[in-house]
Amino acid sequence: MATIAVSDQLALIKENLSEVLNEEIIESVLREGRPLKVYWGTAPTGRIHCGYFVPMIKIAQLLSAGCEITCLFADIHGFLDNLKAPLDLVQQRAEYYRLTIQAMLESIGVPTEKLRFVLGSSYQKSPEYIMDVYKLSSLVTENDARRAGAEIVKQSKNAPLSGLLYPILQVLDEEYLGVDVQFGGKKIDLISTKIDILDSPEVVTKKLRKSLAVPRVIEDNGLLSFAEYVLLPAAALKGRREFVVDRSRDGLEPLVYSNIEDMQNDYKNDVLTPQLLKPAITQALLALLAPMQAKYQESKEWQEIASKAYPSVEKPKEQKKVKNKGTGYPGQQETQVPDRTTVKKDEV
Amino acid sequence: MATIAVSDQLALIKENLSEVLNEEIIESVLREGRPLKVYWGTAPTGRIHCGYFVPMIKIAQLLSAGCEITCLFADIHGFLDNLKAPLDLVQQRAEYYRLTIQAMLESIGVPTEKLRFVLGSSYQKSPEYIMDVYKLSSLVTENDARRAGAEIVKQSKNAPLSGLLYPILQVLDEEYLGVDVQFGGKKIDLISTKIDILDSPEVVTKKLRKSLAVPRVIEDNGLLSFAEYVLLPAAALKGRREFVVDRSRDGLEPLVYSNIEDMQNDYKNDVLTPQLLKPAITQALLALLAPMQAKYQESKEWQEIASKAYPSVEKPKEQKKVKNKGTGYPGQQETQVPDRTTVKKDEV
Repeated sequence: MATIAVSDQLALIKENLSEVLNEEIIESVLREGRPLKVYWGTAPTGRIHCGYFVPMIKIAQLLSAGCEITCLFADIHGFLDNLKAPLDLVQQRAEYYRLTIQAMLESIGVPTEKLRFVLGSSYQKSPEYIMDVYKLSSLVTENDARRAGAEIVKQSKNAPLSGLLYPILQVLDEEYLGVDVQFGGKKIDLISTKIDILDSPEVVTKKLRKSLAVPRVIEDNGLLSFAEYVLLPAAALKGRREFVVDRSRDGLEPLVYSNIEDMQNDYKNDVLTPQLLKPAITQALLALLAPMQAKYQESKEWQEIASKAYPSVEKPKEQKKVKNKGTGYPGQQETQVPDRTTVKKDEV
Repeated sequence: MATIAVSDQLALIKENLSEVLNEEIIESVLREGRPLKVYWGTAPTGRIHCGYFVPMIKIAQLLSAGCEITCLFADIHGFLDNLKAPLDLVQQRAEYYRLTIQAMLESIGVPTEKLRFVLGSSYQKSPEYIMDVYKLSSLVTENDARRAGAEIVKQSKNAPLSGLLYPILQVLDEEYLGVDVQFGGKKIDLISTKIDILDSPEVVTKKLRKSLAVPRVIEDNGLLSFAEYVLLPAAALKGRREFVVDRSRDGLEPLVYSNIEDMQNDYKNDVLTPQLLKPAITQALLALLAPMQAKYQESKEWQEIASKAYPSVEKPKEQKKVKNKGTGYPGQQETQVPDRTTVKKDEV
């Protein structure tokens, strides 16, 4: 791989992150000339939907910047979040996640030699790790643990004790995975999150056609967010940061965007209407999905693991639209997409 | 061992306990005709003082009732309570505790075949145990953990997270030690707790002579408590529940007690004065200590482990009395004796 200037590496690493803590750690590693080691963790639970493209794009950018990436599949956490699913099923899901994530990154078009996958249970049950859990839990106060967990765990009167334990585990993960930094994110509303990564082009098209897009309103606009966090950066990784909106039906030249600000301005002014944006987003998403879905069709291994990991439904059924009678915005649903990604180096 | 009637077993098991939870579990085990399995846990930290006779008498009663006793040396907890002492030092202390407790029970005169010692670290770092810690912490709420720990852990704004974890570990200990019930207790004020189990007769006599004993006041009277929880039950275990107070110096017959109520009444009426009680307690305590201290003198192993476990001081120095100028009660000090012992069966 060609050497990239530290400033370019840093720009790729920081792109679209809402917050970077202790940036000097990242800079000093890059100036040493060694790869920055980053981890991203996810609990392998439900099937992978298109919202996962957000962290995948970030991982792709990190890989392009020469970073070493550890994908942590927090199988124990996944198991604990829903004690009904036995641990070995969660581990099948981790395997499904591994194959799918690998294919998503290949579909984005980045080299994946510096990508590794680790199962949480491979070290989170070791005597050394648990002694460190005991130790940290006697050094960290209840209040500090609560503050640290406040952003990732729901606060309630009936909150389980595990919510206080998670920040400790997360700090230890950095140490045990031998990384410099971790990145993570919070939930945001994002259209496409009800679209399974293996949905057929017809289903994808239909779901996007029905999706919410209020004309002229750019706030909480899932389509524009998808362009901002997925499509524009994906195009940039392929060599040209460009998003094209076809207008041939109206006998007009296409709209060509190289940044989200121009798209937002045109959307506010109703130049870029929902009727124009939806098919453009659909086309770009289908282009991202196509090589991955072709790979799925060829891979017996992946198909088998999919049916083992999600035995009741081979492929999710299209959900019936629930009309939100209160607001008149049908189809709006709360999503669980990691976004507003953050690179953090917690100090232990 | 001769068979004891269930009612006699039950009486011995319950004697001097302030609370017995789920007594029906105990009864049903006894009626099955198998030994009741009981565990008692302690963190091996400081040297063993005479306050330890309280749980030792209870253990002796349980052994006499045919119970199987597991002494859990919570070395990890001991290590966590004071992270300055490395774990292997705590384990040396556990070994010191083992030898000392064994000798204390032999000195009380009970058979110890059904007594076993277990080091917490031998299973509290195992993958099975830690998975159960994770599982329980996602089933138990923060509030429930706080309530469960309220009686054993100090509540404060800066309380460490470990305080919430301890109730979970304690519940799991029952399972992993394979016991029916556990017994534990809280701190009480008790004279003799500044007396090391290996203090010479001269030092013991001096400390007791200086101890607090307000005439006619039986509340928080450490001497009477020691008679109640240690000396009378110890005498009973040797065949005759009897405490004798010599009055020959006054040309009177000795006072002979077979229960604490009579002692308390005589003390209230100043028939049993502090001047009579102190030498009587001293004599009875020295009789308890003598065989144990003789054994210590004979045992190179025990002496060596004592100097390894407490390297800075081979034997504790006699503490200078700190005058409590505020209350005029010199010598009164807060103690950390387990007492008000409780047999509990927590429901998991």
